[in-house]
Amino acid sequence: MKNLLKDLNITRTQNPKAKPDAATLGFGEIFTDHMFIMDNDEGRGWHDPRIVPYGPLSLDPAASVLHYGQEMFEGLKAYRGDDGTLRLFRPDMNAKRVTATNDRICLPPIDEEVFVEAIKAVVNVDRDWIPDYQGTSLYIRPFLFATEAFLGVRPSKAYSFVIILSPVGAYFKGGIQPTKIYVEDDYVRSAPGLTGFAKVGGNYALALKAQALAQEKGFSQVLWLDGIERRYVEEIGVSNAFFVIGGEVWTAPLTGTILPGVTRDSVIHILKDRGMTVREERFTIDDVYAAADAGTLEEVFSAGTAAVISPVGEMMWKERRIVINGGEIGKISQSLYDTITGIQQGLLPDPYDWTVKL
Amino acid sequence: MKNLLKDLNITRTQNPKAKPDAATLGFGEIFTDHMFIMDNDEGRGWHDPRIVPYGPLSLDPAASVLHYGQEMFEGLKAYRGDDGTLRLFRPDMNAKRVTATNDRICLPPIDEEVFVEAIKAVVNVDRDWIPDYQGTSLYIRPFLFATEAFLGVRPSKAYSFVIILSPVGAYFKGGIQPTKIYVEDDYVRSAPGLTGFAKVGGNYALALKAQALAQEKGFSQVLWLDGIERRYVEEIGVSNAFFVIGGEVWTAPLTGTILPGVTRDSVIHILKDRGMTVREERFTIDDVYAAADAGTLEEVFSAGTAAVISPVGEMMWKERRIVINGGEIGKISQSLYDTITGIQQGLLPDPYDWTVKL
Repeated sequence: MKNLLKDLNITRTQNPKAKPDAATLGFGEIFTDHMFIMDNDEGRGWHDPRIVPYGPLSLDPAASVLHYGQEMFEGLKAYRGDDGTLRLFRPDMNAKRVTATNDRICLPPIDEEVFVEAIKAVVNVDRDWIPDYQGTSLYIRPFLFATEAFLGVRPSKAYSFVIILSPVGAYFKGGIQPTKIYVEDDYVRSAPGLTGFAKVGGNYALALKAQALAQEKGFSQVLWLDGIERRYVEEIGVSNAFFVIGGEVWTAPLTGTILPGVTRDSVIHILKDRGMTVREERFTIDDVYAAADAGTLEEVFSAGTAAVISPVGEMMWKERRIVINGGEIGKISQSLYDTITGIQQGLLPDPYDWTVKL
Repeated sequence: MKNLLKDLNITRTQNPKAKPDAATLGFGEIFTDHMFIMDNDEGRGWHDPRIVPYGPLSLDPAASVLHYGQEMFEGLKAYRGDDGTLRLFRPDMNAKRVTATNDRICLPPIDEEVFVEAIKAVVNVDRDWIPDYQGTSLYIRPFLFATEAFLGVRPSKAYSFVIILSPVGAYFKGGIQPTKIYVEDDYVRSAPGLTGFAKVGGNYALALKAQALAQEKGFSQVLWLDGIERRYVEEIGVSNAFFVIGGEVWTAPLTGTILPGVTRDSVIHILKDRGMTVREERFTIDDVYAAADAGTLEEVFSAGTAAVISPVGEMMWKERRIVINGGEIGKISQSLYDTITGIQQGLLPDPYDWTVKL
């Protein structure tokens, strides 16, 4: 499979779209001129890698992705530095997660080098689409889904892998802002033996309702508790959750129910490098509230590709509201945001070799 | 919404397909000449109901169903009786389940009457496709999925609802046959607070791996235990599970992790009508094995739309194999199969008013 992209076929659009104003970009609503596609059929493996003009996909109504959710996706970004250099951030981490996700829901494996090379190839074709306005980037969305027209419940015998690109703005206009989080008691996101660690569509569909209910109550996201005892802190929305308590940083360990976030891993590296104690250990929502009572809950933030670092200013659990760091962005949250985005944009040195120049 | 189908637009195919030999039909691999479609957009609701020639759907690559699995499906059948009468079986039950499923993953509601009327309309157009060979039927697959081209994680603002039809053979050629079941210890299907009761794609994607591993070991399906304690019996494969122990019939209660099967409900009605005790109560895999030891485990079977009743001849749990009823079809399993298929095909009276004539 490693040589697959030697036969990459590129068809350029005859009708390039107008590029959006980088200052007003939102998230995930505008797409570039091209996309990468390759197909997989039983007995043949991956074939026909190609870059073609962005446009509709044709699916048989019986395509199993529309029925049984056999699908996965990834998310990463390409950045245009002030020096004009284009960079990806840790695409090898996404490639590794694809391997784990695909294994979990019986999707065909994708060679990790091919995954990264396919991203580079399509980003290169649309490199003029990477915006250069402060805080913007090109969001890269690889996804893989089952296409066989068959209604029996078993792994599909045909798949497509597609990469689309979307120029995106800063997640929070005007810099990062503290959010309000609702601690979810009725619904859960995962449990051991399910697919919490994998980036599969079904994990996101099942999370929509709790998020919508929290938003109706005036919160921007939910904090998920574990699916067994409903005490252990797991994630915030679709991001990993971090708690700074008494000078130490706590985050849920990767025991199968937690998504192994690339930003999560980067945060842990940076904090340890600064000499901080990072506890990847289970901890409960009671621990968090006890710390708030004791005055030792210093910061709460979530970490993910879209928003990078999102500080939490307020939490609500069983009618009990707590305000964190006076509702202000904490020092650790701000400095992690500055460090990670600085490395991504080439404003800071990259001591970990995380960026890949294009 | 109730009057929606007054504007139903029907476009008949100009190229009808050859119908398959009813004696050799499989499951879910051949589709009829037409399909039903209607669309939903925020602020406009359901619109443009139409029956069109069966053919590919066009989806934007960013359509959220391909990323976040916001999708559901249903399954039911139309039968051609020996008297030539066409019948549906309890479509109102599927309609009710759609309401519950859609609510759980933020899909727009479908009026239950419209759901049934849409099924009737498209089956009527393709009524010549309902096969008349022993054990065959027309499998009806309604499904609903998110189409908005947007990568933010929130409920979509656009959807399509489609009904496709597939002539299918008897699930087991030559009559029902006892299967071998593997009791799954590593993976689970659901847990409280998740989507076990709803017919959403993600539930099926996450179940593929355990099923594939069981099949590698020579079993046809898995028996799922509960997601919390991994002791309570929940389902068999994608069907509901029944255990006849000491003359009483046990099945898991509908507490949120179990799919409320139409065949499950029919089985319970018929058994109670015969004066049998049906216990919709939690019971453990230890209870099942203790009954096997005591010689009181009389029958095990699963119940679902595709196979109707599927008897279990053998079970394996933690290296411990038990044979049920000497590996033969039990009396209760066989008589339930005969009664339900008899009602469906019009061979037996329908005391419950379950069938709907077309």
